[in-house]
Amino acid sequence: MSSVSVVGLGAMGTALADALLAAGHTTTVWNRTPAKADPLVERGALRAGSVAEAARAADVVVLCVLGYADVHALVDAARDDLRGRVVVNLTNGSPDEARELADKVRALGADYLDGGIMAVPAMIGRPEALVLYSGSTPAFEAHREVLKVFGRAAYLGDDAGRAPLYDLALLTGMYGMFAGFLQSAALVRSAGADVEEFTTALLVPWLHAMTGVLPGMATQTAKGAYASTGSNLAMQVVAQDTLEGLGRAQGVSTELLAPLFALMRRRVADGHGEEDLAGVVELLRRP
Amino acid sequence: MSSVSVVGLGAMGTALADALLAAGHTTTVWNRTPAKADPLVERGALRAGSVAEAARAADVVVLCVLGYADVHALVDAARDDLRGRVVVNLTNGSPDEARELADKVRALGADYLDGGIMAVPAMIGRPEALVLYSGSTPAFEAHREVLKVFGRAAYLGDDAGRAPLYDLALLTGMYGMFAGFLQSAALVRSAGADVEEFTTALLVPWLHAMTGVLPGMATQTAKGAYASTGSNLAMQVVAQDTLEGLGRAQGVSTELLAPLFALMRRRVADGHGEEDLAGVVELLRRP
Repeated sequence: MSSVSVVGLGAMGTALADALLAAGHTTTVWNRTPAKADPLVERGALRAGSVAEAARAADVVVLCVLGYADVHALVDAARDDLRGRVVVNLTNGSPDEARELADKVRALGADYLDGGIMAVPAMIGRPEALVLYSGSTPAFEAHREVLKVFGRAAYLGDDAGRAPLYDLALLTGMYGMFAGFLQSAALVRSAGADVEEFTTALLVPWLHAMTGVLPGMATQTAKGAYASTGSNLAMQVVAQDTLEGLGRAQGVSTELLAPLFALMRRRVADGHGEEDLAGVVELLRRP
Repeated sequence: MSSVSVVGLGAMGTALADALLAAGHTTTVWNRTPAKADPLVERGALRAGSVAEAARAADVVVLCVLGYADVHALVDAARDDLRGRVVVNLTNGSPDEARELADKVRALGADYLDGGIMAVPAMIGRPEALVLYSGSTPAFEAHREVLKVFGRAAYLGDDAGRAPLYDLALLTGMYGMFAGFLQSAALVRSAGADVEEFTTALLVPWLHAMTGVLPGMATQTAKGAYASTGSNLAMQVVAQDTLEGLGRAQGVSTELLAPLFALMRRRVADGHGEEDLAGVVELLRRP
């Protein structure tokens, strides 16, 4: 069993500490507002009086706070006590922020792992939680058992920026799917139809089936080659007129998909109407 | 075995006729450009010399053309020959167009079914193809075996407009998911990472997992009650800043998700920051 400190006891940090306690790890906790640690201490956690003390107490120091300004302040406060530790930073941020922090932590004699938690607190400790890690390979391998306590642990290589990149890319994919759901739910509800039955019986199985085309779109994107394999862009853009007509008839705004259709039309106007949808990705490059 | 006519032999109509032939149904075909029928006739289809002849030849008349202007012209041309038939219209259109056509067909003494094909031609005749039907219940029940030849057949009730509504709502959900994919693929590719591995190993399983929250969002939408069950809207809008920062750093436009985040911020500004994302659906009502 490893010794782990959890610094930052919001809903997520508390869930992480609870998962460690449940797995039998010696768990030290610290939070800026000390009262937040009380329930965890009642459940068996050790209380640190400072971030530095939390760093000294453990092999693995988990940081889970609101943003990078806080993370830097915490690392500064423990700068003389991190040597030989592994800092596992589970705070949301950008790839560049992660790389910069990794350099700072390594300069203090510690190893660095960045992590992206693809779960809400209630999922932590269960197999449906996914945590993406990148950074020090030896640190990940040495502490794999601890890291697997939180959920499924995916290691993405030694670039500390990779985990936050994929975290944000997965969130982006999710928000796209949610935007599609909201648009379809608005249409179905405005027609007086049963949104719950539509979603459960039709939309969810349909989206599952449609994820099957994403690997092919990814291959097209990787190759930059978009020859049509089925219904081409020129045929697909007509759906926008039908969608907008239905929106007008039912009093539903169709703004959520407007940028996608605008790019599809631009791609057709650029002479790519015979190609597949994935070619739209070329229009997302900024000059 | 039923006798079926297929009118309109584009890629989809041809796939429908082939599926009927493969299942052993007497299949008559007609197309405005007659040469398009030649390969089907070679494979065993009967050739009709006119739409009226195609109507007289069969119990079930399938229409699969480009738009409702064509559908109306076809029905007009066969107006004296449709009595006692079932017209199955698989042409894309709006719920109102379907209802209007249903009235016209019924006035000619025929039954009407509207259908939405949730598949590309290559999928027709296979279990992964889904066809949504609505309209005459007796017609659906009498010809269920024929209709199941094309793929899984879902009957949605006697409102002819229901199938095109759900067809369009499902397409809308799919395009949202595709928009999310394109945005995430652009981010991953611009960072020099492997889009194919990202998609297959992470994005597809992640989206599968995230479809699990859609039924809950549908219940919230149906009730118009959006009390937060996890990460609330105010917490979620910060992802936009991180996404936009990453887009700037990597030269990727983030326009595809801009309308969703704009609505999320508006919902927070309207005092619903403590609620869940699904409440955004309320902002899609047009006054």
